[in-house]
Amino acid sequence: MSMLICINGQFYPESEAQISVYDRGFQFGDGLYEVARVYSGQVFGLQEHLERMISGAKAIHIPLKWSIDDLRNIVLEVVQRNSIEDGLIYWQLTRGTALRTHAFPPSAQPNLIAYPLVFTPHPELAEKGINAVVEPDQRWLMCNVKSTNLLGNVLAKEAAKQKGAQEALLERTGYGVIEGSSSNLYIVRDGTIRTAPLSNLILPGITRHFVLQIAEKLDIPVRKEYFDRTQLYNAHEVFISSTSLEVMPVVQIDDRTIGAGKPGPITRKLQAGFRQLVN
Amino acid sequence: MSMLICINGQFYPESEAQISVYDRGFQFGDGLYEVARVYSGQVFGLQEHLERMISGAKAIHIPLKWSIDDLRNIVLEVVQRNSIEDGLIYWQLTRGTALRTHAFPPSAQPNLIAYPLVFTPHPELAEKGINAVVEPDQRWLMCNVKSTNLLGNVLAKEAAKQKGAQEALLERTGYGVIEGSSSNLYIVRDGTIRTAPLSNLILPGITRHFVLQIAEKLDIPVRKEYFDRTQLYNAHEVFISSTSLEVMPVVQIDDRTIGAGKPGPITRKLQAGFRQLVN
Repeated sequence: MSMLICINGQFYPESEAQISVYDRGFQFGDGLYEVARVYSGQVFGLQEHLERMISGAKAIHIPLKWSIDDLRNIVLEVVQRNSIEDGLIYWQLTRGTALRTHAFPPSAQPNLIAYPLVFTPHPELAEKGINAVVEPDQRWLMCNVKSTNLLGNVLAKEAAKQKGAQEALLERTGYGVIEGSSSNLYIVRDGTIRTAPLSNLILPGITRHFVLQIAEKLDIPVRKEYFDRTQLYNAHEVFISSTSLEVMPVVQIDDRTIGAGKPGPITRKLQAGFRQLVN
Repeated sequence: MSMLICINGQFYPESEAQISVYDRGFQFGDGLYEVARVYSGQVFGLQEHLERMISGAKAIHIPLKWSIDDLRNIVLEVVQRNSIEDGLIYWQLTRGTALRTHAFPPSAQPNLIAYPLVFTPHPELAEKGINAVVEPDQRWLMCNVKSTNLLGNVLAKEAAKQKGAQEALLERTGYGVIEGSSSNLYIVRDGTIRTAPLSNLILPGITRHFVLQIAEKLDIPVRKEYFDRTQLYNAHEVFISSTSLEVMPVVQIDDRTIGAGKPGPITRKLQAGFRQLVN
């Protein structure tokens, strides 16, 4: 199943989809990305994903030559040309191609790359939950920007995998366990959801946004507060959210069983609410 | 002046030097790099640069298929084929090309890219010194690994440039001003050099290594200790070191004049010692 990959508006087969070794995304991780879920041919939360990329570009001062409509059209064209019915669409923006120098090169034009990601749904995991481990958060201090400086996330995810777990929950010194290596994190105790507040330390997840909306609609109280490892271990329910995993129960952390060892009632309600939203 | 660029042992003109958009260096900043100085056709500190890359690869678990001799031969071939007499040679290692997933892809083969960087020597700066500004250190917690997760460095360097300065000195909360955005940092007071100790927060610079060796030989006392912004401002001398800048005096920081506003005697001695070492 070979994909068609879009680079600056041109489409290439995978084997020819290449960028210059002088691209600043390659040299410095100097760029942004988004991953969105396609349900029945529709890109879920596309407006929110596009707005986040535009706000990220402002934060790291990448001058965008594309309007939000241009970006939307590119993403939709990639979905359509690859006939994605249910899957993931990825797009990446870099500051452009230039001779290597740390400061912004005055003449560089941003590069935009977009392609489908291989997506294997695991409905059985959503039913029974996943295992996670706590890992130190070694990332930088602009985690609210969805940049491709992802080595800290990569190393944490791999550490989790080596321990037989599906996600690493990141513990930031002085704050607690704040999010997953590629997901937002929530605990439930006595019917109240707790999740880290938006700050420079966590990603403002699009799925998080919808989860909190659903919780409000269902009158489930939410406290945007930090929590530590002990509170995590002692939660009645733990779950994570992300574009690819949606609302995913976590039933074991560092070999400790969470709650009853199976998805709890609040998690179930949010999963149902999320399914309703995407249908 | 078009360069010949080496990708996995093959040489390409710049316009054809491309990597897959699936390269993990591009998607995740999942890789390492080195920059070395060429003096009269000889790569200075090549053994030290190669050893640092090998130790970085161990730290982030990139399995190297090249021995240190293989790496050395590749770097030397790039220098020779491009006839670099005095300049900079850059090489970059990535975890390889694979379908996008955070955890390490089992089948990926590392990619190695090497090419000359454009180098413009500024001997007048070494004579009169540069301006710097203090910027918040927003980088991750494995700054001892010379990875291509460099967006924090890029943003700091650009902020310095916007303020008319040549370098950003990075202030890490709880530690002080620890290094430059692309250099190590030193202060001098009453004849004693102070520089941050090696830790996960700073790069073990190759030039730093030689500077401390020269200081020892010249019986200049060195304390490997953190210092704060006040101590920086009140230093008698401040200098930075890097592969491209060698030993560079800093004579103004945040609009404050450092010492007498010109390179001090200890800085001068180290510059002379370094020139002697490379000749």
